[in-house]
Amino acid sequence: MSDLRIEPLTAAAFAPFGDVLEARGAADRIINQGMCGRYHDRARLDFGPGGRAGISIFQARTRSLPYRLDLVERHPEGSQAFLPMTDDPFLVIVAEAGPDGPTGLRAFITDGAQGVNLHRGTWHGVLTPLSGSGLFAVVDRIGTSANLQEYPLDPAIIVRA
Amino acid sequence: MSDLRIEPLTAAAFAPFGDVLEARGAADRIINQGMCGRYHDRARLDFGPGGRAGISIFQARTRSLPYRLDLVERHPEGSQAFLPMTDDPFLVIVAEAGPDGPTGLRAFITDGAQGVNLHRGTWHGVLTPLSGSGLFAVVDRIGTSANLQEYPLDPAIIVRA
Repeated sequence: MSDLRIEPLTAAAFAPFGDVLEARGAADRIINQGMCGRYHDRARLDFGPGGRAGISIFQARTRSLPYRLDLVERHPEGSQAFLPMTDDPFLVIVAEAGPDGPTGLRAFITDGAQGVNLHRGTWHGVLTPLSGSGLFAVVDRIGTSANLQEYPLDPAIIVRA
Repeated sequence: MSDLRIEPLTAAAFAPFGDVLEARGAADRIINQGMCGRYHDRARLDFGPGGRAGISIFQARTRSLPYRLDLVERHPEGSQAFLPMTDDPFLVIVAEAGPDGPTGLRAFITDGAQGVNLHRGTWHGVLTPLSGSGLFAVVDRIGTSANLQEYPLDPAIIVRA
């Protein structure tokens, strides 16, 4: 099995895969009589033909490192945003779309104040909290057509700090 | 000035105003090889004519109790979901729409594992974290037409535990 090293999550590094949702730098607008900064419309949402936006709550079990990754998946019909409801870092594993399947795997760790929006069709690992309650709000496509492709990794990949 | 007492947030009590987004009871689906429960499509989203869904990040300053409420607002063109990115409770103030403006004010406190989705047009107070970092993900309408109505409260209302 090969190893994958974890990198800090930054908007620049994550740009080929999706959006980092965070309050970094100056807010786009100051609202509520100066009491709130709005970082406006930061996700490239796409729910495809026949889909619509929905908000679901995910209650995920925590995992530990080293983490054995044996599957990635993607949603061809829509983007998917993971918004942590705690300030615990979580693991975000993504890959490029090669001609024969996922390639160029990357593993990122959030800083505890970041969510992510995976662009439509991005290969990714399943939700992987490492600590905390494992509670997330998820904004993704609600629709009736098939929207899940899975790709087993054999041999598995070991993700390490 | 009159007083408003804070109630625990429950789906039943909040139903006239919006949706409580939480992992309560059995999940609708178990995904990720048994490692995650999905509470599916729990928000009544509505972005009106000419609007679309967006995800923004709000960085709000914390407030303290007793809290002086002198304004409520509403968004006639769209729903607005507040998804806390920490496990700190926050205050959710809402009101019914009377013929002459907001009436029947209610103040709810979350349990630290709840978000809310305000239905389109619901009168509400501004974002009011009481502790923690004040970081929220917000799912609301992105559009060009006016989408804010404000209603000053005079005399102000004092919100108490």
